[in-house]
Amino acid sequence: MSKIKAGIIGATGYVGVEVLRLLINHEEVEVTAIGSNSYIGKNIVDVYLSIGYENSMVCIENEKVIDMCDVVFTALPHGVSEKFAIKAIESKKKVIDLGADFRIKDEEIYSEWYGVSFIDKILHKKAVYGLSEIYKEDIKNADIVANPGCYPTSISLPLMPLLSSKLIKNNNIIIDSKSGLTGAGRELSTSSHFTEVNENITAYKIGKHRHTPEIEQNLSEAYKENVDVVFTPNLIPVNRGILSTIYCIKEDNVSIGDIHKKLTDYYEYKDFVEILPLDKITSLKNVIYSNKCVISVHENKDTLIICSTIDNMIKGAAGQAIQNMNIMFGIEETTGLKHIAPSF
Amino acid sequence: MSKIKAGIIGATGYVGVEVLRLLINHEEVEVTAIGSNSYIGKNIVDVYLSIGYENSMVCIENEKVIDMCDVVFTALPHGVSEKFAIKAIESKKKVIDLGADFRIKDEEIYSEWYGVSFIDKILHKKAVYGLSEIYKEDIKNADIVANPGCYPTSISLPLMPLLSSKLIKNNNIIIDSKSGLTGAGRELSTSSHFTEVNENITAYKIGKHRHTPEIEQNLSEAYKENVDVVFTPNLIPVNRGILSTIYCIKEDNVSIGDIHKKLTDYYEYKDFVEILPLDKITSLKNVIYSNKCVISVHENKDTLIICSTIDNMIKGAAGQAIQNMNIMFGIEETTGLKHIAPSF
Amino acid sequence: MSKIKAGIIGATGYVGVEVLRLLINHEEVEVTAIGSNSYIGKNIVDVYLSIGYENSMVCIENEKVIDMCDVVFTALPHGVSEKFAIKAIESKKKVIDLGADFRIKDEEIYSEWYGVSFIDKILHKKAVYGLSEIYKEDIKNADIVANPGCYPTSISLPLMPLLSSKLIKNNNIIIDSKSGLTGAGRELSTSSHFTEVNENITAYKIGKHRHTPEIEQNLSEAYKENVDVVFTPNLIPVNRGILSTIYCIKEDNVSIGDIHKKLTDYYEYKDFVEILPLDKITSLKNVIYSNKCVISVHENKDTLIICSTIDNMIKGAAGQAIQNMNIMFGIEETTGLKHIAPSF
Amino acid sequence: MSKIKAGIIGATGYVGVEVLRLLINHEEVEVTAIGSNSYIGKNIVDVYLSIGYENSMVCIENEKVIDMCDVVFTALPHGVSEKFAIKAIESKKKVIDLGADFRIKDEEIYSEWYGVSFIDKILHKKAVYGLSEIYKEDIKNADIVANPGCYPTSISLPLMPLLSSKLIKNNNIIIDSKSGLTGAGRELSTSSHFTEVNENITAYKIGKHRHTPEIEQNLSEAYKENVDVVFTPNLIPVNRGILSTIYCIKEDNVSIGDIHKKLTDYYEYKDFVEILPLDKITSLKNVIYSNKCVISVHENKDTLIICSTIDNMIKGAAGQAIQNMNIMFGIEETTGLKHIAPSF
Repeated sequence: MSKIKAGIIGATGYVGVEVLRLLINHEEVEVTAIGSNSYIGKNIVDVYLSIGYENSMVCIENEKVIDMCDVVFTALPHGVSEKFAIKAIESKKKVIDLGADFRIKDEEIYSEWYGVSFIDKILHKKAVYGLSEIYKEDIKNADIVANPGCYPTSISLPLMPLLSSKLIKNNNIIIDSKSGLTGAGRELSTSSHFTEVNENITAYKIGKHRHTPEIEQNLSEAYKENVDVVFTPNLIPVNRGILSTIYCIKEDNVSIGDIHKKLTDYYEYKDFVEILPLDKITSLKNVIYSNKCVISVHENKDTLIICSTIDNMIKGAAGQAIQNMNIMFGIEETTGLKHIAPSF
Repeated sequence: MSKIKAGIIGATGYVGVEVLRLLINHEEVEVTAIGSNSYIGKNIVDVYLSIGYENSMVCIENEKVIDMCDVVFTALPHGVSEKFAIKAIESKKKVIDLGADFRIKDEEIYSEWYGVSFIDKILHKKAVYGLSEIYKEDIKNADIVANPGCYPTSISLPLMPLLSSKLIKNNNIIIDSKSGLTGAGRELSTSSHFTEVNENITAYKIGKHRHTPEIEQNLSEAYKENVDVVFTPNLIPVNRGILSTIYCIKEDNVSIGDIHKKLTDYYEYKDFVEILPLDKITSLKNVIYSNKCVISVHENKDTLIICSTIDNMIKGAAGQAIQNMNIMFGIEETTGLKHIAPSF
Repeated sequence: MSKIKAGIIGATGYVGVEVLRLLINHEEVEVTAIGSNSYIGKNIVDVYLSIGYENSMVCIENEKVIDMCDVVFTALPHGVSEKFAIKAIESKKKVIDLGADFRIKDEEIYSEWYGVSFIDKILHKKAVYGLSEIYKEDIKNADIVANPGCYPTSISLPLMPLLSSKLIKNNNIIIDSKSGLTGAGRELSTSSHFTEVNENITAYKIGKHRHTPEIEQNLSEAYKENVDVVFTPNLIPVNRGILSTIYCIKEDNVSIGDIHKKLTDYYEYKDFVEILPLDKITSLKNVIYSNKCVISVHENKDTLIICSTIDNMIKGAAGQAIQNMNIMFGIEETTGLKHIAPSF
Repeated sequence: MSKIKAGIIGATGYVGVEVLRLLINHEEVEVTAIGSNSYIGKNIVDVYLSIGYENSMVCIENEKVIDMCDVVFTALPHGVSEKFAIKAIESKKKVIDLGADFRIKDEEIYSEWYGVSFIDKILHKKAVYGLSEIYKEDIKNADIVANPGCYPTSISLPLMPLLSSKLIKNNNIIIDSKSGLTGAGRELSTSSHFTEVNENITAYKIGKHRHTPEIEQNLSEAYKENVDVVFTPNLIPVNRGILSTIYCIKEDNVSIGDIHKKLTDYYEYKDFVEILPLDKITSLKNVIYSNKCVISVHENKDTLIICSTIDNMIKGAAGQAIQNMNIMFGIEETTGLKHIAPSF
């Protein structure tokens, strides 16, 4: 079989280059084009030396990428991907958007949080939300996939099966998430300046983070009723990883054992989600540099506490995008994504 | 006026040496004796080079410290301080215990969480809980002060005034705290090994941390009714500092402005507690290496979110102990504690 | 072709588990046995959760590993590997020793630095020093390989070609190396305690580090005359990576361009060594989590400055061991080792 | 005695705000004005929250600072201080310049490295180089002090006494320095972006760092002959601190004991320089957040190795500037600078 030709639009941002790094070693893929806005004509190695001269590749205009590939990964700020997606779909190419443009189904909510409107409403209807473990069947036949946000991935994977089976209540859900700095990307800002971040932790965008409507959309869909959450993201001084600590209330007569069994059963045959035994607590070490989501469940008084960990750049972005590509192209879901998290 | 003669029992642990470091530059104090269990006869500089040869001082047996001072700071594991405290009080010395021995008033609860009983029940009655800003009047006349735990300090300072004025409800209080590694002390363990901690974050002792009954005791005393909390501590890869993120519910018709005003008024003339303006979020940078507690308040939907930050070794331990000593000896409360948190 | 059966003796130390982590995804290898001293009967996942339950494997006695495999990796403290190696060779198994037992050819020097003697002098003669790029031809036919130390790898790769071609002098070689903490292993010690390492840097074992005779042996062999070095290792607050900064003197009439060309030519067809263009400076980001050694060369006045970077756990230990296994078994040298260093 | 009125020009940069932080608690000083270029009219607390609302102070135009104080600290990029210094001296104010404008005596060398010329050559002659321990007598009577660079301070303190007494040779001096990120200041750049710095170390400006001529000027003045150095600075992932590792050659018949005795004697009565016993190695922990320079000496073969540690922001900038102010105004040299380095 000939290899899948993949192109990356926005390849010089953190997410874009992570897609590239993982695809270079993907045995069924050939990266045929990488696009950039700011580095056209420049070798990717001169932007990220770590990619290595043996993987030299020159950035072209984003506009020119589509024609050169079977599948295009768009890794762009919100509001910018849609026009590329429209063009790609017209050209009969598959699209995996790592930005926010196709994640929110309800245009009103999207506009309220992101300040822009849908351009092609029909395309938004066609877009499949790419939470791989939950929507695999839909992803198989998708032409365009909206790759989930990092926080929503870490939160939806444990909560959706519990909400859809009504094991937990749909109110009083409080989420305290902690993220590494790669989540803030490559753009310079005081809040990403080394001396500001190091030896510090800070909450940010309390009640205002744009992943909130995405989280609520997923949870509401699982529960078949509206679900609101209180979501507080924090920045911690690590490069990678998200720990989402989720506080919620079990339904009456539901035990922690029921919760644990539900999740264990649900994810039994899913390669990238692992539910720890009841006496263990997960941490970033279990997931960084891998495509895994590792989850542990706990209780304190009447409150259920879920710790959910992912690598924000892999399962929370580039890795899940490639997992979706694998599903869309009918190849083994774990191809190119088998890295084991290093213990140190 | 002659200087206060201070002694430190357990001076070679992290808390003990921090008391020493701060007292060396305290203009009204002379450190007359430092005791140790493991380093008797050894110079403190050979244990902590950073103390400096100009501050050379030889560790003596803990037992011999009491006779050489007016006030004794005990910085020992729980269950070990009490016998020193008894002896010191018999010798008419003031005692400030930085361990847990005198923090919990209810012996049954203490035994349940700490596995040991009270030895001298009358002394436990006499002991004043040293949350300086709240119990200053009692501390003034105390012979023995139970210095608060680090997490309880960060949590009680914002919550007690709100609970005592019934601005918030006494249920559904969820606390997600993040602490630096000095909180785990000097003892070697895998969970404090550099490669385990660095680039990681992990919750620990979920529902089982010994500061829980202390937090609940303080909050219940403020509310005049039982208050339960869900408390989850996390270890983050920084040396110092605690951020406690507190989720709770406002009483009906209470606005975030009311909350903010209450705290601002309550702490207006307190030097070491600062309530930020409503549009700011606190972070560790505001407090580490200082004796301050800096608090910011926020809301999301119906939930009140409080971010409370302290340096766990200073306001959370050695600094508050010295603040208590200042109060007990009738000297200016801020003496020796004026350090401004470095921005970097 | 059937897979190579690999066993790991000392699989629960940092080096051992890194060999395991890399071998699990090695397409030509099946790990058939992992041995441990302290964790016999315990699942490796209970020691390193990050390995993942899908890779569950129970540790057996180190003594039992040899019979179950074609090649045995010994990852043990010095002085302990040799007896396993003797037994393995007797059983006609291949051995790759990641400890120091077979690195030093001269028994007198070995005894002086390591305090132990050779047991089987003939086996020491047979052992091939596994600096893969330099000794590939010998490794092909080796039954036992002494895998190089981490510092010596980072230093020998740039210096050996320059010394053997007499482009630099053999005196005044000063090496200031900086290493991450994984180099200190899993054993608890104050010098690896988080709060000691974080926000710190310190030189250690100045003039006494046991990698010194290994470095000098390699350089002397290249120069065909005695070469002495001044070697100062430092611990920096990172998990992984070594930067060796090497100061030396060019021979008369040798330009920096000559130096650069020599190294570029020498490593042109070597996959894992990269010489940067003359205007770039290498850093850990180029190599961590990969098997690469990336080198940059510079000059200041008459002094040649070489910056050489590796991941101490991969090219400096487990990765190079697997590279050697690939060479010994005649399979493609890069198999299982193609990971690209993440940029962040 | 009335307090010294101090003003800071450039108070919102890292060095400026560190001068402010230290002066606020200086018992003999009142900060009467803080100037800024970018934050005129803004409260310093809104730039650095950690300064605390109790220390609120509004930034004024840099031009207006001089008239409001007795001594002015200029903390500005090179080439910008001189005009302020000229005006201040005309107004009979004392000046302490924390920039590079007055450090280099030789205009030709200054122009070569900094690309600008002297404006007022006479003022340059009057300026005293403020390496406090070495030039104290000159500083006493100075109207204008050129505060030394951070790297030169860490290097000159150990080397100048050894060179002036001819205990070491003036050639083959190699300096490998490691600095925390505050040295790079508050300005945003990719090289100070958290994810670039964290888990990394990199040399920079090899052979081109502007502190090189300052180091050579100091060493040459001590030796009374030209001294050249090879100087390589590195960035390490810590906020504060410099470790300069200095490799040099002892003169014939000079022992390490002679070296140690020379330094110990020279600094015996200097409060801020400490020479460790011969069996100890210094590290950043001994100096950060203090005004101390801690030095240890070692040898390997014929090479003398000196480890010299300072806090780059205090002894390497703001602290030494205040020490110089103390000397200039005839007050106790250690006033406001007695902080002991925290061990953690």
